[in-house]
Amino acid sequence: MSEAVEISESVMEHPFVRQMVIQLRAMDSYGTYDNWSDEKVINPLVLTKERKREIPVVGDPDEVIVARLKAYYNALSSLIEKECGLMAVPVVNLTHEGFGRAFIVVGKLIAMDKTLRDVHRFGFPTMEKMIEEGEKIVSKAAGLVNEHRTVAEL
Amino acid sequence: MSEAVEISESVMEHPFVRQMVIQLRAMDSYGTYDNWSDEKVINPLVLTKERKREIPVVGDPDEVIVARLKAYYNALSSLIEKECGLMAVPVVNLTHEGFGRAFIVVGKLIAMDKTLRDVHRFGFPTMEKMIEEGEKIVSKAAGLVNEHRTVAEL
Repeated sequence: MSEAVEISESVMEHPFVRQMVIQLRAMDSYGTYDNWSDEKVINPLVLTKERKREIPVVGDPDEVIVARLKAYYNALSSLIEKECGLMAVPVVNLTHEGFGRAFIVVGKLIAMDKTLRDVHRFGFPTMEKMIEEGEKIVSKAAGLVNEHRTVAEL
Repeated sequence: MSEAVEISESVMEHPFVRQMVIQLRAMDSYGTYDNWSDEKVINPLVLTKERKREIPVVGDPDEVIVARLKAYYNALSSLIEKECGLMAVPVVNLTHEGFGRAFIVVGKLIAMDKTLRDVHRFGFPTMEKMIEEGEKIVSKAAGLVNEHRTVAEL
């Protein structure tokens, strides 16, 4: 991967980015990130045009990419949980080829539901874009939960 | 596996068993079942004590067992669909070791949710038991759907 992308301090302090770093570190079972700064840990999530060009169009997602994807849905779940006060559980269903579906489940309610494809190219053009998308998903999911609380509390 | 278990005609004609046969045949991508009777196709689902004893306590589920498990949740989904008139989608999330979760999703509602374990030993003591369990799941799920139709129609 090409050299590190600069990420501003204010972006690094955003709750969603902080939660992403927590989740990425939690999934780092080999301790690779132990001596890494938060900025270095989150950096591969930024997929600039140059970086994207380096990844083949067709490919199988490796373990590290799948961990990033799961960290993303864990972070979303954690923020949805904070927003609505009910436990949110991520479910990621992925084929070897990097296709599948992601759900976030609250009680018996599917608070979020996304079709996954080309997971081997998972990432965001900028951190700001990731924050924007993440916030949109969290607020939509929390809205759905509040609208259908009886099902979400089942 | 030990010799075939006899299954009565009335059991073979039960809607759930018929649906199971349809689903098992649909997943038979190599045409193994083409010359098999319905009774022969469904037979391995019966896990008598003798048959169970032949399977190791710990083991990884093979492709054939996973296909049977999926056929089961497909059949349940199809019957739930008939019962409530809304599309029911099965989601089976399984690790290599045969642990995981199965959902049946109707709209944004989780109509059924089951923890899976020891999938390498998937089966039922008798066909009657399979029908009984299946009917219980279908009626419970359809009840949930009818109770929360606004969410199931999302």
